[in-house]
Amino acid sequence: MTQNIETFIGCDSSYDEAELVLFGAPFDSTTSFRPGARFGPSAIRHESFGIETYSPYQDDDLTDYKVFDSGDIELCFGSAESALADISARTAEILSDGKLPLLIGGEHLVTLGIFREVQKKHPDVHIIHFDAHCDLRDDYLGAKLSHACVIRRCHDIIGDGRIHQFCIRSGEREEFRFAEKHTDMHKFTLDGLAETIAEIGDKPIYFTIDLDCLDPAYFCGTGTPEAGGISFPQMLEAIQTVCSGNIVGADINELAPMLDTSGASTAIACKTLRELILAILKNKR
Amino acid sequence: MTQNIETFIGCDSSYDEAELVLFGAPFDSTTSFRPGARFGPSAIRHESFGIETYSPYQDDDLTDYKVFDSGDIELCFGSAESALADISARTAEILSDGKLPLLIGGEHLVTLGIFREVQKKHPDVHIIHFDAHCDLRDDYLGAKLSHACVIRRCHDIIGDGRIHQFCIRSGEREEFRFAEKHTDMHKFTLDGLAETIAEIGDKPIYFTIDLDCLDPAYFCGTGTPEAGGISFPQMLEAIQTVCSGNIVGADINELAPMLDTSGASTAIACKTLRELILAILKNKR
Amino acid sequence: MTQNIETFIGCDSSYDEAELVLFGAPFDSTTSFRPGARFGPSAIRHESFGIETYSPYQDDDLTDYKVFDSGDIELCFGSAESALADISARTAEILSDGKLPLLIGGEHLVTLGIFREVQKKHPDVHIIHFDAHCDLRDDYLGAKLSHACVIRRCHDIIGDGRIHQFCIRSGEREEFRFAEKHTDMHKFTLDGLAETIAEIGDKPIYFTIDLDCLDPAYFCGTGTPEAGGISFPQMLEAIQTVCSGNIVGADINELAPMLDTSGASTAIACKTLRELILAILKNKR
Amino acid sequence: MTQNIETFIGCDSSYDEAELVLFGAPFDSTTSFRPGARFGPSAIRHESFGIETYSPYQDDDLTDYKVFDSGDIELCFGSAESALADISARTAEILSDGKLPLLIGGEHLVTLGIFREVQKKHPDVHIIHFDAHCDLRDDYLGAKLSHACVIRRCHDIIGDGRIHQFCIRSGEREEFRFAEKHTDMHKFTLDGLAETIAEIGDKPIYFTIDLDCLDPAYFCGTGTPEAGGISFPQMLEAIQTVCSGNIVGADINELAPMLDTSGASTAIACKTLRELILAILKNKR
Amino acid sequence: MTQNIETFIGCDSSYDEAELVLFGAPFDSTTSFRPGARFGPSAIRHESFGIETYSPYQDDDLTDYKVFDSGDIELCFGSAESALADISARTAEILSDGKLPLLIGGEHLVTLGIFREVQKKHPDVHIIHFDAHCDLRDDYLGAKLSHACVIRRCHDIIGDGRIHQFCIRSGEREEFRFAEKHTDMHKFTLDGLAETIAEIGDKPIYFTIDLDCLDPAYFCGTGTPEAGGISFPQMLEAIQTVCSGNIVGADINELAPMLDTSGASTAIACKTLRELILAILKNKR
Amino acid sequence: MTQNIETFIGCDSSYDEAELVLFGAPFDSTTSFRPGARFGPSAIRHESFGIETYSPYQDDDLTDYKVFDSGDIELCFGSAESALADISARTAEILSDGKLPLLIGGEHLVTLGIFREVQKKHPDVHIIHFDAHCDLRDDYLGAKLSHACVIRRCHDIIGDGRIHQFCIRSGEREEFRFAEKHTDMHKFTLDGLAETIAEIGDKPIYFTIDLDCLDPAYFCGTGTPEAGGISFPQMLEAIQTVCSGNIVGADINELAPMLDTSGASTAIACKTLRELILAILKNKR
Repeated sequence: MTQNIETFIGCDSSYDEAELVLFGAPFDSTTSFRPGARFGPSAIRHESFGIETYSPYQDDDLTDYKVFDSGDIELCFGSAESALADISARTAEILSDGKLPLLIGGEHLVTLGIFREVQKKHPDVHIIHFDAHCDLRDDYLGAKLSHACVIRRCHDIIGDGRIHQFCIRSGEREEFRFAEKHTDMHKFTLDGLAETIAEIGDKPIYFTIDLDCLDPAYFCGTGTPEAGGISFPQMLEAIQTVCSGNIVGADINELAPMLDTSGASTAIACKTLRELILAILKNKR
Repeated sequence: MTQNIETFIGCDSSYDEAELVLFGAPFDSTTSFRPGARFGPSAIRHESFGIETYSPYQDDDLTDYKVFDSGDIELCFGSAESALADISARTAEILSDGKLPLLIGGEHLVTLGIFREVQKKHPDVHIIHFDAHCDLRDDYLGAKLSHACVIRRCHDIIGDGRIHQFCIRSGEREEFRFAEKHTDMHKFTLDGLAETIAEIGDKPIYFTIDLDCLDPAYFCGTGTPEAGGISFPQMLEAIQTVCSGNIVGADINELAPMLDTSGASTAIACKTLRELILAILKNKR
Repeated sequence: MTQNIETFIGCDSSYDEAELVLFGAPFDSTTSFRPGARFGPSAIRHESFGIETYSPYQDDDLTDYKVFDSGDIELCFGSAESALADISARTAEILSDGKLPLLIGGEHLVTLGIFREVQKKHPDVHIIHFDAHCDLRDDYLGAKLSHACVIRRCHDIIGDGRIHQFCIRSGEREEFRFAEKHTDMHKFTLDGLAETIAEIGDKPIYFTIDLDCLDPAYFCGTGTPEAGGISFPQMLEAIQTVCSGNIVGADINELAPMLDTSGASTAIACKTLRELILAILKNKR
Repeated sequence: MTQNIETFIGCDSSYDEAELVLFGAPFDSTTSFRPGARFGPSAIRHESFGIETYSPYQDDDLTDYKVFDSGDIELCFGSAESALADISARTAEILSDGKLPLLIGGEHLVTLGIFREVQKKHPDVHIIHFDAHCDLRDDYLGAKLSHACVIRRCHDIIGDGRIHQFCIRSGEREEFRFAEKHTDMHKFTLDGLAETIAEIGDKPIYFTIDLDCLDPAYFCGTGTPEAGGISFPQMLEAIQTVCSGNIVGADINELAPMLDTSGASTAIACKTLRELILAILKNKR
Repeated sequence: MTQNIETFIGCDSSYDEAELVLFGAPFDSTTSFRPGARFGPSAIRHESFGIETYSPYQDDDLTDYKVFDSGDIELCFGSAESALADISARTAEILSDGKLPLLIGGEHLVTLGIFREVQKKHPDVHIIHFDAHCDLRDDYLGAKLSHACVIRRCHDIIGDGRIHQFCIRSGEREEFRFAEKHTDMHKFTLDGLAETIAEIGDKPIYFTIDLDCLDPAYFCGTGTPEAGGISFPQMLEAIQTVCSGNIVGADINELAPMLDTSGASTAIACKTLRELILAILKNKR
Repeated sequence: MTQNIETFIGCDSSYDEAELVLFGAPFDSTTSFRPGARFGPSAIRHESFGIETYSPYQDDDLTDYKVFDSGDIELCFGSAESALADISARTAEILSDGKLPLLIGGEHLVTLGIFREVQKKHPDVHIIHFDAHCDLRDDYLGAKLSHACVIRRCHDIIGDGRIHQFCIRSGEREEFRFAEKHTDMHKFTLDGLAETIAEIGDKPIYFTIDLDCLDPAYFCGTGTPEAGGISFPQMLEAIQTVCSGNIVGADINELAPMLDTSGASTAIACKTLRELILAILKNKR
């Protein structure tokens, strides 16, 4: 008789065999509006049994790949630096074993924990960033480590010209001014994505999806829903486009299940994750 | 003073005069994920008083037609065969009185109960099937009578070439492989619908609408919401197209009101039913 | 130490300096289906702190303008005439001080309270009306003052040819017949809006937005969600178009926060209000 | 085949045979805080199928009595006087046919509509009033017809010494001062109920139950939940006590189903109504 | 790196070492009112991390015992007999390995699956049954295997005098009549429990807790909440009393997490289970 | 015309005149389970308009006292130390002006921010602590500043014999062992409260109420509901008892409005705060 094991559907490989490793960062302490993204990774895992392992979009099946789900890291609430250090440690382990790390947040700040390690291994990495928000504040009420500052902190590491932002439709005037000078920002839509990926070529790409890039019509279960945004079919196509590049790490974040009374947001998050895993691994073959 | 009578809005004809008979099948025992579709028919009836009897889309009014609402059948939970038998019996009565049966589910399995009788009367019937799911499994955890198998069971009855599926975007690989050989499946969209109806010509059509064919943005109040899917304007146009054919029976199913906290899913179900009734009856004149 | 003050975000001007005055009418006594619009104005104010004062759509910021938020009027529930009189009194005060009134409902009937005064000051005013419903009944179960009659009551005041209705998709047959003769109704969509505004030229415009003109996919938190309707990007563009005219008063109404479990409807209402204020004031400069 | 009929469970008598007539008043226009009591009667009727017709408390069954459920009156929202007139008309009809009227609210103001007629027929009637609130304001923001004034309006009719209030725990200081002089108020609890009923003897009693007399632990689905209050077993015993008197009319009110997400409040309302009907009719035999 | 394992808190023993084995039966196909008990076991497991392993009531800790959580059985929806067979098979395995089985439902019918095997091993077993409902119908709409019949089916096996029912407050008249002749029913309360356990002495006891025995004030997250019922402190004391006997199997059932919007019902279920495990195992030492 | 001001009902004094100052600490970053207590203070303020200023329990009215509500402090999420510093600063200002500070949380950690300053002014202060949880961990996953450690941190400041805990029913074994040696813990109930207050005599008392001391039946809207606990009438009596002592500061905390779908928990929090203010100020006269 086996103990109760719960993984994302179809991700039942052993760690040793795995090409890709899922892990969850149930952290939301710096969320400035509605919290609850901490419950995102377990909800995605739990509700994944409402979808299939097979994707009719890609005509491919999760059971054909080797994915390991290592569960959620136990993170300290109330200390962002400590939580980031734990995420970085797990990432380092995965990378050193030659596997691709895929993080499920939690609030967007968790990206910094995985990205620090990915960038150490791949110093020339570019970031593809899907989000409703700029996330470019230098600080938020004094805090440098805030979900509202996460891309700014990434910029501290890799500087100008390597951060490509899409679907952005909310922020302070100063953030948009900063973007004009320091990032490659595509406001409101995914326009220019294919060209961007073509230009990056085979350089390493870190892909971070804040699910609130989706229109709240499709995805209302998030702390700060922003009217406008992309549809699910657009997301599907964009994942194909980005994953035609050389993905070296990725995350999806900001599902807040307490706000998702119908379950539809969690379901779209599950399907986005399935399609993302399949697109990454298919392209690696 | 009259007893409390509650029908779908504008469906107040006597049974004898009625051209079309509504009836509800409050059954969801085989639902594999989130149950609650059993409450669909009473919610549709109850909330129909939030819409009007007049359709500006068709410039037509339910009060101009003769529709009888016979309420919900009392069904035995836990026995699919017994529930289907009761649905078939009610259908047979309606058909033998020369009226058109329109069933409100309940989970999708209820379609089998009405379809068996419709097919007896119209052996050359075609099925137009709107759904997010294939519903083509041969069994689900051993059960042949499951909502995940309902179209497969219909195929057992009418065989190849007469089942036309639209908007399908979820299923196991085997179901899609089965569809390639045995059904006329149109994945993801309604593409090809007009051509299909034209080819069917004046042969009888059974029209089954699993409301989860709609995008969850429009309809999240269902047990297994599947990202992707059609919009309400597309549904309106499709109903017009299908009902230009020779409809001999129909159903709508899979509204789960407990998951519809805002009421918007129930409202769209009500309007879909109003438009469906009007389109069927208008075309009969 | 200051008392707890809560205004719509960025609307912190003094009354004397203000160009535009926000005020709330928390009234929903005539709502015929699901009540709760009374909580709309306080929810919009409260949740506005989840959005920014800066609009990337207009590249403009609320903090650059002078807006005063005078809070909610304390209205008598159960007496529509009394509530309307109180709304009219507040409007008269704002108008006599040379400021532009912008009302937050409440149910749609509140429009009559503000419009009566606006029309006194601007007798040649036109109405631009965005709504899912005709609101053209002569009475509703005997009541002349009902949310279902509000545009009809406005028509009583200004007569034919000056009411321009958009996105309308629900009503009784008689209302649509009335519209054919007496109003300029554009069914279902915003088609013809630009032409209408061009024709009106520099004549005064009263702009009333029933938020249920939006598709329930975008805005389900309202008493009577009507499938079909416009998207948020369409709303943004339409606001720009209408506000290129000579706006002399406006309102947004029919947010029912109790039905908005995710907060996404309240968020879209906040953003609509931000864009409306910016568009009106920008054009006045 | 029969039309869809929905009555309170076990209340299927014909009108002519009936000893007691249920009717609903779906009105809540004067509700000052959270509205939604309008949906109370239909929810009670609909959810009654989750309870049994048999009471183990009284060892008695609804099917042994003759009760007719005439459904909800269609009431005009926004005009309290008009709604009360309609309630009075229905009451008058029931009384003139020699049957006992039992009203399901709606907000508490509806009591005035039925009580006016009951008092006409039984001028020496006493009121037993269970409530969390005094309901003794002379007006509420200027309105004389408000749920907060309903017992004051009854006092206008029958004067001092005949209104007996129990469980009261909320109101303005003036209401409590008024009660000291003009009503028989028992604060917080049911203390003194048996003595009161004994004193009234065989004089006619009108029994009005505002369900918010229950502690919100037992009954949270109401517009203005007030901490403190009685338990369900206390309610059961109190119903027995009151119904040992000569009941000539009764109502239960203030269930707001939209606030009852679990269904437990609606369930307790159903059971309270079942016990009330049984206790009244048993005692009449 | 380990796979994601999720057990009830503190139940991390290996199977071989375990004294007691938890297993879940996520089945609710025969639920006649609101379904969703299928999600009970996973919710209890998932939310158990909100409580502690230590009980201040018993001054004892789950980590001091050996408990194995084997997760949920994958059950076929729509076939009660098939589901029961699977539950029985798992039970038989646990019993044959000399361990004590503790089942988490699901609807109450699941009790029959475990009880059949327990009774085979302990033919002289008594049942202690906590419930709001009699569960003594011979059939429900024709179905012999229904949650409303489960104790009747147990009676078919063990006959008169060995079923002891407590807290019962709902059922048809016939069920109460049946109980008078065939079971030891204690209506409404736990009165007589200590005496009953004393009389049973060291004979084997099967303990089945339908959590709806609790008052809905404490536990509203269940399909059929019944006003009246016991409090949590009473439950705690009763568990101590029953577990002073010779427990040979047990279950708790009927948590429906979809109805538990606050999480308080799931939390009380978790704590009940913790106290039950501790009380059983402590007494075995 | 006045700006929109929102205070706790009846707390409209100027700061200079005020005897007592309310302030909110909307912080919940260290919450380990369900977050959302950050919305507690604004919900209490907003919903206070559903209760009255008059207390029939104390026959006293908030409008007879001078209370100032200074609103919520804007706190940095993600840094507990920074948030505590801001709370301490506001407290210091209130204390130096000779007024009594009353804090509305937020999670329980906020108590440390106010208590540090109160203890500076009153070094011999005792703490009366109502809670379901010990809050005596030395750290939580490495964090010393966590809601689970707040009373331990207070103990660091004032040492043994001056912390009096009531209603405690959850914690790790080590916390209960710590309490045996270092605090005056009264498990489960309020037993011994009157004696404790009598012993403290006229020494200063800091009174901290974690609202989860209430039974979840009365108060489910909190992050970690713990079965068991006190009732509202017990709370009322206990407030009277404690406030007969020399209160020098107080707080109530841990209302999480997102979990309070019915509003009943927020309502009980409002009433608790009203009674607390009245009891403190009445006793000072």
